[in-house]
Amino acid sequence: MNQSFKVFCQMIGLATVLSGAVCLAAADDNSVGLVNKQTFSTHDFQTFNGSEIPVVNIGWEAYGELNANKDNVILITHFFSGNSHAAGRYTEDDALPGYWDSIIGPGKAIDTNRYYVISSDTLVNQEPHNPLVTTTGPASINPSTGEPYGLDFPVVTIRDFVNVQKALLDSLGISRLHAVIGASMGSLQALDWATAYPDFVERVISVIGGGAVDPWTIATLQQWANPILADPNWNNGDYYGGEAPLAGLRQALGMVTLQAMHPLMFNQLYAASGPGESAPLHDIRANFTVVDQLNAAADARTTFADANHVLYLVRANQLFMAGFSENLRAGLSRVSAKTLFLPASNDLLLQPYLARTAHETLMELGKTSYYEEIDGPWGHLDGVYLIDQKAELIEQFLSTD
Amino acid sequence: MNQSFKVFCQMIGLATVLSGAVCLAAADDNSVGLVNKQTFSTHDFQTFNGSEIPVVNIGWEAYGELNANKDNVILITHFFSGNSHAAGRYTEDDALPGYWDSIIGPGKAIDTNRYYVISSDTLVNQEPHNPLVTTTGPASINPSTGEPYGLDFPVVTIRDFVNVQKALLDSLGISRLHAVIGASMGSLQALDWATAYPDFVERVISVIGGGAVDPWTIATLQQWANPILADPNWNNGDYYGGEAPLAGLRQALGMVTLQAMHPLMFNQLYAASGPGESAPLHDIRANFTVVDQLNAAADARTTFADANHVLYLVRANQLFMAGFSENLRAGLSRVSAKTLFLPASNDLLLQPYLARTAHETLMELGKTSYYEEIDGPWGHLDGVYLIDQKAELIEQFLSTD
Repeated sequence: MNQSFKVFCQMIGLATVLSGAVCLAAADDNSVGLVNKQTFSTHDFQTFNGSEIPVVNIGWEAYGELNANKDNVILITHFFSGNSHAAGRYTEDDALPGYWDSIIGPGKAIDTNRYYVISSDTLVNQEPHNPLVTTTGPASINPSTGEPYGLDFPVVTIRDFVNVQKALLDSLGISRLHAVIGASMGSLQALDWATAYPDFVERVISVIGGGAVDPWTIATLQQWANPILADPNWNNGDYYGGEAPLAGLRQALGMVTLQAMHPLMFNQLYAASGPGESAPLHDIRANFTVVDQLNAAADARTTFADANHVLYLVRANQLFMAGFSENLRAGLSRVSAKTLFLPASNDLLLQPYLARTAHETLMELGKTSYYEEIDGPWGHLDGVYLIDQKAELIEQFLSTD
Repeated sequence: MNQSFKVFCQMIGLATVLSGAVCLAAADDNSVGLVNKQTFSTHDFQTFNGSEIPVVNIGWEAYGELNANKDNVILITHFFSGNSHAAGRYTEDDALPGYWDSIIGPGKAIDTNRYYVISSDTLVNQEPHNPLVTTTGPASINPSTGEPYGLDFPVVTIRDFVNVQKALLDSLGISRLHAVIGASMGSLQALDWATAYPDFVERVISVIGGGAVDPWTIATLQQWANPILADPNWNNGDYYGGEAPLAGLRQALGMVTLQAMHPLMFNQLYAASGPGESAPLHDIRANFTVVDQLNAAADARTTFADANHVLYLVRANQLFMAGFSENLRAGLSRVSAKTLFLPASNDLLLQPYLARTAHETLMELGKTSYYEEIDGPWGHLDGVYLIDQKAELIEQFLSTD
């Protein structure tokens, strides 16, 4: 680990556990402990675009205890490259806990002594080949053919992610959510929940997200799809019997890695590289160290990922407007939950103006909404790594009516 | 043209001439008039990395008159996708003048009644197939084989661009520059001039640039190279007898287009597109309007472009540190020119911190340096389209010792 990064981890009060290029909290006394991953299935699922998926399977996990009234439930919705694993460990040997372990646990901001916290995998999750992820998407077997769906899988939206979660909650007899909380793509689900099922949702916390994508965000996300579409192995999505489009997938996930970070942190993490390197000066085929490192990180991210799933995830995000109405204002007019927006000041991907627009629209509509920015060097990733900074605010927001 | 964009063009006082998605000034009374493009050749050119290029040809043009002492010369250095055409028109029929026509001309900030303004094409210019560009690079004929160089062309740096310009000025008997001024990649050349030939350069204006690239910028620029490297037609740079890697080139130039703009302007230009479009909801193969438009714009940009040239341009930028010394401070210690940095506040590509770092380093070294930010909605492109905003400052900077 490079020294300045180690210092940074200590500075922000985290144990210096490094995974890829990430410092995360080590296990603490307030952990939710060992977590059990479960599977939920639903049949004849109707998608927002009017298609039907015969069988949907998704993974989920929970922390804390469901009370007798079943009214202490908080739903956590995950980000683009994430999954249900928001807190705790699956086994004692896990190197790292779930991604928001710093705010989910007994006595923490999302207090598992009070709340029953549920988190589930989305449809078309990026990592269908991860043994700890259960998802349904183009890599899943199409029951009508016995082969993977490929592009026969219908386009799905954030609303479909929400509807699968709704079906899961229905199956558990839960008819009320104390809060829905998510980061990035998770924040889109959280806000859409409040428009889709306004009587169901009491509070929404949108971290590093917004109310709707705009042309710039659609075009920016398209950059992640393009290398996959250009890979000859992609073969119009039909590659499951042959060679997968791993080069395109790697390029896509490399861009996700880079674009989710601000130069402030990126330059610390990759400080060993710079314009003075000798190999790239003498050989146009030679890479800068930072490029090799980023490629290696992207390569590691391809292990469990599927290229078509990335395309479908990109599309789900590109199609997002909370409420799925004629415009954002109309969509948000249905919200009865109170909302808290926590964008990151240095976010270059889902920039703070997206959250501010949603917040201001809700205020204009007479709703109760709060807005505060996370300050940090990571950029977009501040919403994952530095969420702790807003722990007290989150705790207060959850504790008051 | 969409209405809000028209309003914007009027707002900033420009005639609403649209080229691609760009409003530029129409011809005015203070034009430099018709411009004549010339060619300069030099032989046995020694590159910074120790190679030799037997013949270098580059295009150049000039505005104003060289005085008897040859001490009224201003050199303009061009940006990544640009060429020597900074002002005026080649023919009466040209739809648009050169890119900085708003500040170069009789009575303008860079006053051609006073100064002899020279502008030249760089090595490995993006558009070797543009009849109005003369450049030498991998698409040029290697005299020792009679075939295009391809990857046998040596890696070149910003310093090599400077040295070709130096040879051009030497050939004209010019031994002093009143100023070197450039935007983006042009700003890198401008600042490097002052480190390479400190006795030659009196003033530097660095617009939307910086003193050195950092790992984040190296990685960001690499994104433009990757689609070319991944295109099977690229064939390790050897495609001149066959099919060019146009798909990769288009993807690269699409990213250049997108990443040079800030959402503020991008969302106005592509306001017709949005998350509510029907085709992408129903077909994963269908594109959003903004994606089709961006692809079309990128396609148009491939007309005269060469994929290897883009790779070499990316590399030249990735290798940049003014002075090419052990660090930026050492490089800048050689500067005797006074410097003016004009980054754009909303630049997401070469962000203002790069210029600020160079400015502060020069100040620490006891040099005379000024720093002001261009305010606008374009992002990086503010340095091209809204340079007019700093016309008075530029005029003052050029007029004082």
